[in-house]
Amino acid sequence: MKITHAYAAQDAKAKLAPFAFQPRELRAKDVLIEILFCGVCHSDLHQARNEWHNTVFPVVPGHEIVGRVTAVGSQAGKYKKGDIVGVGCLVDSCRSCPSCQEGLEQYCENGFVGTYNGTDRFDGSNTYGGYSSQIVVHEDFVLRVPENLELAGVAPLLCAGITTYSPLRHWKVGPGHKVGIVGLGGLGHMGVKLAHAMGAKVVLFTTSTSKVEDGKRLGADEVVISKDADQMAQHTNSFDFILNTVAAQHDLDQFITLLKRDGTMTLVGVPEHSHPSPAVSNLIFKRRSIAGSLIGGIAETQEMLDFCGKHGLTSDIELIDMDYINDAYERMLKSDVKYRFVIDIKSMRDQKA
Amino acid sequence: MKITHAYAAQDAKAKLAPFAFQPRELRAKDVLIEILFCGVCHSDLHQARNEWHNTVFPVVPGHEIVGRVTAVGSQAGKYKKGDIVGVGCLVDSCRSCPSCQEGLEQYCENGFVGTYNGTDRFDGSNTYGGYSSQIVVHEDFVLRVPENLELAGVAPLLCAGITTYSPLRHWKVGPGHKVGIVGLGGLGHMGVKLAHAMGAKVVLFTTSTSKVEDGKRLGADEVVISKDADQMAQHTNSFDFILNTVAAQHDLDQFITLLKRDGTMTLVGVPEHSHPSPAVSNLIFKRRSIAGSLIGGIAETQEMLDFCGKHGLTSDIELIDMDYINDAYERMLKSDVKYRFVIDIKSMRDQKA
Repeated sequence: MKITHAYAAQDAKAKLAPFAFQPRELRAKDVLIEILFCGVCHSDLHQARNEWHNTVFPVVPGHEIVGRVTAVGSQAGKYKKGDIVGVGCLVDSCRSCPSCQEGLEQYCENGFVGTYNGTDRFDGSNTYGGYSSQIVVHEDFVLRVPENLELAGVAPLLCAGITTYSPLRHWKVGPGHKVGIVGLGGLGHMGVKLAHAMGAKVVLFTTSTSKVEDGKRLGADEVVISKDADQMAQHTNSFDFILNTVAAQHDLDQFITLLKRDGTMTLVGVPEHSHPSPAVSNLIFKRRSIAGSLIGGIAETQEMLDFCGKHGLTSDIELIDMDYINDAYERMLKSDVKYRFVIDIKSMRDQKA
Repeated sequence: MKITHAYAAQDAKAKLAPFAFQPRELRAKDVLIEILFCGVCHSDLHQARNEWHNTVFPVVPGHEIVGRVTAVGSQAGKYKKGDIVGVGCLVDSCRSCPSCQEGLEQYCENGFVGTYNGTDRFDGSNTYGGYSSQIVVHEDFVLRVPENLELAGVAPLLCAGITTYSPLRHWKVGPGHKVGIVGLGGLGHMGVKLAHAMGAKVVLFTTSTSKVEDGKRLGADEVVISKDADQMAQHTNSFDFILNTVAAQHDLDQFITLLKRDGTMTLVGVPEHSHPSPAVSNLIFKRRSIAGSLIGGIAETQEMLDFCGKHGLTSDIELIDMDYINDAYERMLKSDVKYRFVIDIKSMRDQKA
C-alpha cells in the first residue's frame, strides 16, 4: 500500500509537523479511505499537548473524517470503491459487552478504540487519526455520508454533530419543547441547528453580545446573555432540557434554575477545574437532573448523518490548509473560529506531490 | 369546637412546650381529625429552631400524622366519622398549576401549603402541625390508612415513607434492578424496606459496621461499609439506581461511580454545607444522572399507603410521650433512634385531662 502522509506531534511541546507511516494491510472487513476533509476538535489539541497525560507519541490527531473509499477487504461488503464515507471518534470496541450489544459503542465497558491515540485490538498498534492522507477502518465503524451535503461541512458532524445530537435524541427533544443550548462554539452551534431542526423552541445562552445575531441565524428563537441576571430570570422554570456545551468552569445553578420540574441539564464538556458544586435544593424542589453524555454510538451517528442529509445541515466551517494547523490551534484556544476549522486534506497531498 | 392542645416552640431558642389554640371552624370540605400518632421528622427540629430562617412562631411541628375522623364539613364526602386517616407534609396547594393538575402537588408552582409553618390560602393564618390533639384539613389532602397496619408505625410513612417511595417509583425500581440505599436513618430504613418490597436487589450503604445486621433484617441483600474502598470497588458500574438519603456533606462521586451506564443517583436530603462538586467525567463517560426528589403527591402517597398495606410495611419506631419531645430532638441529632420517634398523642391528652 501507498505510504500515509500525515501531520503528527512528536512530543507534548512540539508543533504538529509532517510525518509518514505505512498503513496496515487491509484485514478482511477493512475499508481503505482516502481522506478529503478532517475537522479540528479541541480534543485534538488536548491530546497533541498531552493535557490528559495519556498521549502515545507520535500522535496524529483528527476524528472528524470524511473521505472516499479506495479499496475494501476480502470480506467487506458494506461499502464499495468510490463511496463517500465518514469516520468519527471510534474505530472499534469490544463488541460483546452490554453497551456494545445495545449499539452504544461509545460506552463500551472494555473501552472503545479511539480513532487516534487508541490501541488496535489485534496488533496492539497505536491508532493514527484524520490529519492524514488515508486511513484503514473496519467497515462496522465507517458511516455513509448523505450525497446532498457539502463534504467539508460534514466532517465536524462526526464529533461535534453526534455529541450534540445524541443527548438531544436521548432526552427526546422535539416539537413543543423549550430547549436551551449553553455556549456557541463548535458543539453549541451544532446543538442550535439540530435542536431547531428537531422542532424545538431553541434558546441560545452565550456570554457574548456579539453572538446574538449569529445565534438567531443558526436557528435560535431567542438568544440570552447569560451574564444578564434579568434576562436569565425571565426564563426561570421554563426549560424542558438544556444542553450545556461549555467545558470551562462555570456556575451550573444559573441554568439549573431555568429548568422546569423534571427537566434535565446535560453536560458534554469536562472542565479542567471543577464547576462550583450545584445546589442540591435546586434539584430536589423540582425533581431536576444533571446528566452527562458522550459522543454517540455508530447506529446513532448514521441516524444523525441521515437526519442532517434530510434537513440539509452541516457545520459552519473555516477551511484551512494542513500547514495552518498550528495557527488554527492558537486561534481555537481563543475561540476565534466560526465554528469549526476543517482541514482540506488535498492541501497536504499537494505539498507532498 | 373544642380547643386544640399542642406542643409549640415560641422562638428559635425555646424548648417545645404546651400550647393551646382554637382550630378553624370546618369549611365545607374539611375533615376534623383526632390525632393518635405523629412521627418526629428532622424537619420538625430545623423548623422549631428556625434553621431555615423562615419560621413563624409559635410553631407546632409534625407532618407524619395518623388519626381518626371525628367530624366532616357540610360537603365533605370522602371520609366519614371514625375513619382512620393520615396527613403528610401538605395540607393544600394552588390546584391549578401544571404540577397540581398532574397530581404532583409537592411541586406546586405556586408553593404548596405546608402542614405546619404554612399559610392558609383562605384566611392567611399560620398552619399548625401534628404535635396536637386534633387538626382540620381539606379532605383532598387526607389519606386513607390501610386497616391491617399498626398505626404508630404508619405515621412516618407520611413523610419518610413517601419521600423514599416516590423516587423509587419515578425511576421505575423493580425486579431485576440493583438498587442502592445510602444511609440507614428514618428515610434510609424505609428506602430499604420499600425497594425490597418492590422486588429489587437492595444494597445498603452505611458508614457504621454496627448497622450491618439491622440492614439485612430490614431487607437489604447486602450491606456495604462505604468507608471501605475495597468493598465499594466491588460494586463499580453495577447499580441501576441509588437513593441517597444522607443530608450531611459527603463525597457523591464514590456512589456515582457505582452506577451503571444510564444509572441515576437521586438525593432527597439538602446538605447544610454543599457536597464536594461531583466530577463531570463520571457523568459523561456513562451517561449517568444526579437528580433530586421531594416527598410525593397526594395520589402517590395514597398509592404508597396501599402498597404498604399490601406488603405489611410500617416504620420501625420508638414510641414516646409528648413531654419527651425535647429529649427526642437531642437524641435525633445524634442519630440515636431506630428509626423514627413517634409521639403517642394520647399522652398529651392524658396530661391535659
